[in-house]
Order: sequence, then structure tokens, then C-alpha cells
Amino acid sequence: MIKYYHHKGRLDLEIGGHLQDPVIAYHTYGTINEKGDNVLWVCHALTANSDVADWFPHTVEKGACLDPEKYFVICANILGSPYGTVSPLHENPETGEQYYTDFPKVTIRDMVKAHALLADHLGIRKVRALIGCSVGGFQAIEWAVMEPWRFERMILCATDAKATPWTIALDETQRMAIEADPTYGERRPDAGMAGLAAARAIGLISYRGPEGYNLTQQDPDDIPADTLRRAMTYQRHQGDKLCKRYNAYSYMVILDAFDTHDIGRGRGGMRKVLESIKMPTLVVGLTTDIVFPPGDMRVLADRLPNGKYAAISSPFGHDGFLIETGQLNALFIPFIEKEL
Amino acid sequence: MIKYYHHKGRLDLEIGGHLQDPVIAYHTYGTINEKGDNVLWVCHALTANSDVADWFPHTVEKGACLDPEKYFVICANILGSPYGTVSPLHENPETGEQYYTDFPKVTIRDMVKAHALLADHLGIRKVRALIGCSVGGFQAIEWAVMEPWRFERMILCATDAKATPWTIALDETQRMAIEADPTYGERRPDAGMAGLAAARAIGLISYRGPEGYNLTQQDPDDIPADTLRRAMTYQRHQGDKLCKRYNAYSYMVILDAFDTHDIGRGRGGMRKVLESIKMPTLVVGLTTDIVFPPGDMRVLADRLPNGKYAAISSPFGHDGFLIETGQLNALFIPFIEKEL
Repeated sequence: MIKYYHHKGRLDLEIGGHLQDPVIAYHTYGTINEKGDNVLWVCHALTANSDVADWFPHTVEKGACLDPEKYFVICANILGSPYGTVSPLHENPETGEQYYTDFPKVTIRDMVKAHALLADHLGIRKVRALIGCSVGGFQAIEWAVMEPWRFERMILCATDAKATPWTIALDETQRMAIEADPTYGERRPDAGMAGLAAARAIGLISYRGPEGYNLTQQDPDDIPADTLRRAMTYQRHQGDKLCKRYNAYSYMVILDAFDTHDIGRGRGGMRKVLESIKMPTLVVGLTTDIVFPPGDMRVLADRLPNGKYAAISSPFGHDGFLIETGQLNALFIPFIEKEL
Repeated sequence: MIKYYHHKGRLDLEIGGHLQDPVIAYHTYGTINEKGDNVLWVCHALTANSDVADWFPHTVEKGACLDPEKYFVICANILGSPYGTVSPLHENPETGEQYYTDFPKVTIRDMVKAHALLADHLGIRKVRALIGCSVGGFQAIEWAVMEPWRFERMILCATDAKATPWTIALDETQRMAIEADPTYGERRPDAGMAGLAAARAIGLISYRGPEGYNLTQQDPDDIPADTLRRAMTYQRHQGDKLCKRYNAYSYMVILDAFDTHDIGRGRGGMRKVLESIKMPTLVVGLTTDIVFPPGDMRVLADRLPNGKYAAISSPFGHDGFLIETGQLNALFIPFIEKEL
């Protein structure tokens, strides 16, 4: 069940501006034990939400890596997201108007600041494992730098310590698609939807990659030239699906946060900061991921003093982290149990 | 210098409809010899044109693979393209109106039919080598099936015998971006330009790939969070550049042709048709190409009875074929000289 923490106070943001009295939505599963050593904190990816059991199949269940009978699992919805935490569709308490494009720019560090507010509110000062896949990993590694004392170990899956030119190009292209829709900017929740659908389709391309599409969207052999191809309907369908559950304003906020991700900013550069992360860290790459290629994940593990690299074999590209939960559990469980 | 062949007659199209009295723009370089055995025919890629010397650097020059002192090189602009051949911006002679969205759907086979009309007009019945990179390769392999008697050998670089679900997804996403711009459909040449820019940026992502971006669009280390990233300006710039030289209507025509590409259609399937192509064929893959992955190019070569596979090593992804001309000449020249 979704819960809300209504923070009373001002959350100052990295680039400038602030969020007054931000609400933070979150989910928990299981119960904290007496020693308080069974807390797992999950950071969610781009368009996901705090309901880990919903978007991360076969992880929040008995015997799996986020087993609620063993662990107390927490996930907070990120700033800007439309799943309960303060977002562009919320009313700005200082103006009485919905934010829309007035929503301030947030960074991954701001998202982490909000997570930390919630952790303090819940009295969580010792997390057994901090877990983040994709943009969830952006938050995890940033949080590990900002508050290393809070975490014993960390799992980073299909992610990076800094946005790359490649991922920035993917995001900027999505912004261009949204802006090609002139309804974006109108003060209504469903503005920019055609652009958002195209943006999502761009994202999908990068999440699935060549092998993912060629495996799952093959057409029958020898079809007429004017036949609609499966990959066409798939792209449209995925675009429409996001439009039903998201909005273009939230999407833009989260794209912006993605692109500013850089654990080295203002701290002497990424490599130096990576060397300072001492906690045991499991870094997991997906063999066909074109967003965060496995070679880059291996380099990330190598640069962490206590980094261990492991690969998940998957034809589904970046989306493999949502699909290959068998392999993922097989890696995550022993690491959380401190057997790896 | 661009030349025009004004075909008098009706070009019937595969899916239906026709083009009345189509004009076909083309370039030639060099002179045909007495034996008529020095003809090279180049098929151009998606948004290129018939001026090979312009878009294919260091190929149309002394000592290079398209040496105009040795060879008679021909390239025809494809149907629908805005570089001289009949296109959506032309007047339909049957209505006196510009085509725009009324331009009929054309396939790669229709483009080849137009090439064949030009070849007949020029009296070219023996081509030493038919050369196509990317969508140029779509035309080349299709033409090799439709008129095998016309060609001695063929070079296919970074291309395929059939559009894959992956490439179709890339194209459909570009259509979604164009359609997100509601000016697309207005009867003016500059309609849909914001959508076209986004579509081009999507294309670029696939042409350059992770390594291409990370190599050429790196930002300085440790920059402020609100700094514009190089990859952002690059995407915008590439979008704008295409808008200055192309139009959304032509782009849609060519995307549609791309997706219908399938040499097996109506002929018993792709594999059977590949087995029937007996001419020596050099198949060249690019090591980091994510549009036409090198593994797929090797499979293509294996399926051709006289196919030879060679790889070009490049960090620039699919665009490598426009950049690695040194390696490309080193492969193409001996093949054209029949030494390979």
C-alpha cells in the first residue's frame, strides 16, 4: 500500500529553486527486525514507482532477493514522478497553482536528498543493501557518496556513475520529440501526449535493442509490402501505454535529472569519487544492453575499490533487468546474504 | 553535374498507384570505355543524393574505388527523395497539384524499376560492380535479384536483405515523431519540420551508436549541472541540418520504402532468394554498427553462394561507412579489380 511522508519544510535544490513542503510517496514490504539489520532500500528507475512488487517481478516474494519475510524493503517514489511524490501536476503551495513547466529542475542529488529525508523520518540509519537498477542505480551510487555511513553494501545493475554523451543524446532526442508536439506547455495534464508517445518509443528502442526486437517482434515470412509490421504496432502500443500512466511534464523533469547525473561533479571528478566508495558493491551488466553496455559496467566495477562484476546473459537488452529475474536473484541473494 | 532523365510513360508501383512521366535525377563520373566493361553503379542511402562525390568522401577520386579516370560511375537519385527525382514536392502531371501526402507509397523494388529505366535509357547493359551501402544496399541486392544479367559482381556494405523488426521499430518511431508535429500534412514544403528534426535525431542515435557518441561528444570533466551538454547541441544541430536540405514528406516516403524491403517477398522467402544470387558478392560489416550489426552481415554473406565477408573496424557505428574510406577503398578496390 502506498504511504506518504508529508515533509514540513523547504527542500533546496542543487541547481536553484526549492520545493516547499514536498510530499514523498513510498512503499515498504516486510518488517524491520529488532537489530535493525534487515533493511533493503531499492531506488526505482525512470518511469517506475515505489511499488517494487509491481514493477520488479519475482523479487518481492518468499525466497527472492527482496523476500518480505526476511527483509524490510523500502522504495521511495522520485521527485517529479507522477506516482505520488511532489510533481509538476501538484499544486505549488506558494502560488496555489499547479507547477507544470514551472516545476524546478531537479538533479539525482535532489532525489537522494528527498530519499534521505524519508529515511530520517522512518528512523532508518543502517541499510543492509542499497539497490538500484538503471536510473535507480544513479540514485544509489549518488546516495552512497552523499551518505556512505548509511549503507553496508550496494548493488548497481545496468547503470553508470555519470550520464554519457550516448545516454544524453537519447534523452535530448526524446525532448525534441516532446517539443515537436506544440500542445506541450499547455497547462493541462494531458498536454504533449503525441510527443510523449514518440519519446517513449525512442526510449524503448534503447531499452530493447536489436536482439530484443528481432527476437520478439518478427513478422511471418513473405508478407505483402503494405502489411503493418509487428514492430510498428509495438512502438505505438508502448507509446500509448506510457501516455495512460504518465505525463509529459513529469517525463521532462526526470529526463533532465538523468542527464545531470555525475557523481564527480564538484568533487574532483568521477574517478576520484569512485575510488572513495569503500563499501562492497556488486556491479551487474546485461550482455545485450546498449544503454549501459556491459563493457562500461565492468570498467565501473574495476574502478570501485570493493567492486565485483557479474553479467546477466539476456537477449532483451537493457530491459533484461526487468525480465531475467531468475539470474538476478541468483546474484543478488548471496550478495545481500554477504556470501558473495 | 546533375542530369535528368525525363521518362515518358507510366511507372506502375508495386503496392498500387503509379507515377506518370517520372523524372529521374542522376550523376555520372568518368567515361565509359569501348568494351563497356568499366561501369560501376552506386545506389545511395536514405537521405543522400546522386552526387556520390559529395556524400561519399575519398571514393570518387584518382586511385580510389570509384576512380573516374578508370571507371564510368553512375548514381541515380531514388524515388521520393528531394534531390531531383520525382518526389512529394513535385507537381502531379495528372492533377496539376503538388503531391505532398498524395505521393504514392513506393517500395525498394519501385526504386530499382526507376534505376532500370535510367540504365536502359543510358544503354547500360553490363555493370562491372553494383555497389550499395545501407539503404543503397537494399536497392543493390533487390536489383541483383530483379535483373541478375545486368551485373557481374556486387558490394553490399552495412545493409540487409530484408528490413528487420529492429530497423522497422527505428523507422516507426521516426514516423511517430513526425506525426507529433501537427503541421505535418499541411500543403507546404516546410510542414512538419520540428517532427522531422526529432526524426533525424532518432536516426542519428542509430547511425552513431554508443561508441560514436562517447568518442566524439564528450563534455569536459566536472561541469555544472545546468550546463548544456555537447550531445544535446549535436542532436539539435543534426536535426536542423536535415531540415535545411530535406522535407518531411520525402522522408516519410523513404522510411516507408525502407520498411517494405524484403527480397523474399512473393518469391518464396528470403533464404531461397539469397541462394539464387550467384554473382560474386562482397559483404562488408562495420564492427560497431547497431543498425546492421556485423554478425547479421556475416550471416548474409554465408547465405550467398558466392558471398565473401569482410569487416571494417570503426568506432563510428553505422556511419563508419561514410568515414572509414581508407579501409573501405582497401576492400572495394581489389574486389572491383576482380583480385578478391
